[in-house]
Amino acid sequence: MKHAVGIDLGGTNIKAALVNGETGEVVQHRSTATRDGEWVDGQPRFALGVRSLVEELEAVAGEGPLPVGLSAPGLADSSGRCIAWMPGRMHGLERLDWGDFLERRVAVLNDAHAALLGEVWTGAAKGLRHVCMLTLGTGVGGAVFADGKLLRGAIGRAGHLGHVTVNATGVKDDFNTPGSLERAIGNQSVGERGEGRYETTHALVAAAQAGDPQAQDVWSRSIRDLAAAIASMINVLDPEVVIVGGGIASGAGEFLFEPLRRQVAEYEWQPGGHSCPVVPAVAGEWAGAVGSVYAVLNPEVACDRGQ
Amino acid sequence: MKHAVGIDLGGTNIKAALVNGETGEVVQHRSTATRDGEWVDGQPRFALGVRSLVEELEAVAGEGPLPVGLSAPGLADSSGRCIAWMPGRMHGLERLDWGDFLERRVAVLNDAHAALLGEVWTGAAKGLRHVCMLTLGTGVGGAVFADGKLLRGAIGRAGHLGHVTVNATGVKDDFNTPGSLERAIGNQSVGERGEGRYETTHALVAAAQAGDPQAQDVWSRSIRDLAAAIASMINVLDPEVVIVGGGIASGAGEFLFEPLRRQVAEYEWQPGGHSCPVVPAVAGEWAGAVGSVYAVLNPEVACDRGQ
Repeated sequence: MKHAVGIDLGGTNIKAALVNGETGEVVQHRSTATRDGEWVDGQPRFALGVRSLVEELEAVAGEGPLPVGLSAPGLADSSGRCIAWMPGRMHGLERLDWGDFLERRVAVLNDAHAALLGEVWTGAAKGLRHVCMLTLGTGVGGAVFADGKLLRGAIGRAGHLGHVTVNATGVKDDFNTPGSLERAIGNQSVGERGEGRYETTHALVAAAQAGDPQAQDVWSRSIRDLAAAIASMINVLDPEVVIVGGGIASGAGEFLFEPLRRQVAEYEWQPGGHSCPVVPAVAGEWAGAVGSVYAVLNPEVACDRGQ
Repeated sequence: MKHAVGIDLGGTNIKAALVNGETGEVVQHRSTATRDGEWVDGQPRFALGVRSLVEELEAVAGEGPLPVGLSAPGLADSSGRCIAWMPGRMHGLERLDWGDFLERRVAVLNDAHAALLGEVWTGAAKGLRHVCMLTLGTGVGGAVFADGKLLRGAIGRAGHLGHVTVNATGVKDDFNTPGSLERAIGNQSVGERGEGRYETTHALVAAAQAGDPQAQDVWSRSIRDLAAAIASMINVLDPEVVIVGGGIASGAGEFLFEPLRRQVAEYEWQPGGHSCPVVPAVAGEWAGAVGSVYAVLNPEVACDRGQ
């Protein structure tokens, strides 16, 4: 068996990739709309969509049934066969057993966990054993690779790095975390941070680059808070690298990374002169699908040791 | 071999325990002054002190040579044979190979890591696989047990839970962390927090208990920051329990734990109603020695998997 299928099941689209099981290369890909909320004969339409994409890619490969890695929002069960917790959207996803449904060997993972494994297999953390990854988008997501294993925790909640306090007197975010990193740099709070002047982080960054002093001030404070959170993570998790990805990071590029690295260096504890690099994500839009394939082919890396 | 020796090498005293290797029970104990800075024939006096205590306890046991677990300040090398980094004090400790020096099987650990393993073996985290521990004293220390293993990280720095930012605009602590948890509740900053009115946290707590409104306010803010840090750790590490130990916790007792639990419940993300208990440390003053014995008898739990 040379290939496996990686599925990135998102709120808008289902992305599917036929992945070379030795190199992590995406050989072929397909995608289709998720159509959350639609049902066919009592089954969520997205589940049928996933099955069709898997069969289609198996036909392309001329092999099958192939192992399937599936990345989705929510908390994955420690069995690696389902998402155990995802309230409010992706109707029908909670507790759907993908092993039974697809009749294939599966690994089901949280989407941020899968993206991290994509970086570990083929991206910015290739060959490393201690990694933190942050994803800066609408919200702030994250995942942790500790001692050569995905850090899942007791109920699959580990790695929610956006939901750490950076300002204890701040307002609570959607997860009840006061003054969280997500509120400090996620796109969802840019309106408040800029007092309504910038609708998106993209607009904020463009204004700051054009010399708008208020935009520069808001952006600097966001970077300061991010740097403090990264220095804190380094003290807690001691990674070999911190990866920063997501639309905000890829959009701002060095306008984020240059001041961020400078500020992290100011805040980082550097025992014996040791410091931890902060680098951009590189695995790209297929990271989740590729990382899911890594999980299904290397269950010892992705699952709980106790299972 | 029924027994092993646990050593807790501190700045003031060397504590040594003969420990039952099956139960973790302390069968006999001894201690002596560390006398940091004194040398005998080119060797640190504390090293000779450790060797004498080991031999003494072997004589008591009528067995030997016994395996030795040794807990000390600083960052332990991934080999588990020495402390690789401990500048400024404990002269002669850095790079001293305890395996060669004692001519015994050894495990050398950071002191906070050892105390956590004491709780995992015989204390508040008995039988658990995902644990965070905080120690509130002069500073704030910590350690993490993730997926049934001590979290060491890339250079043995993982678990420094006192050095996480809770107020990004705050001043930097000794580790360069801005507005850290250590500054928010460690004894070393109580003078500043109380504007010079309370010399120790013990005095602060006594004043708050007696109804002093300023003391109550300072104490509440410290607890708020601690609760925010604990809620953050839960989102990052997803433990089954958070253990809070150290002199401040044992001194204040329920005057800390009751409001702390209430505040953590306000800040905690509770997917599916799941919440994480916050409990006192129970393994007591021998936790470090007992935890070190656990490490030398269970190297797969204490050492890097890659080693």
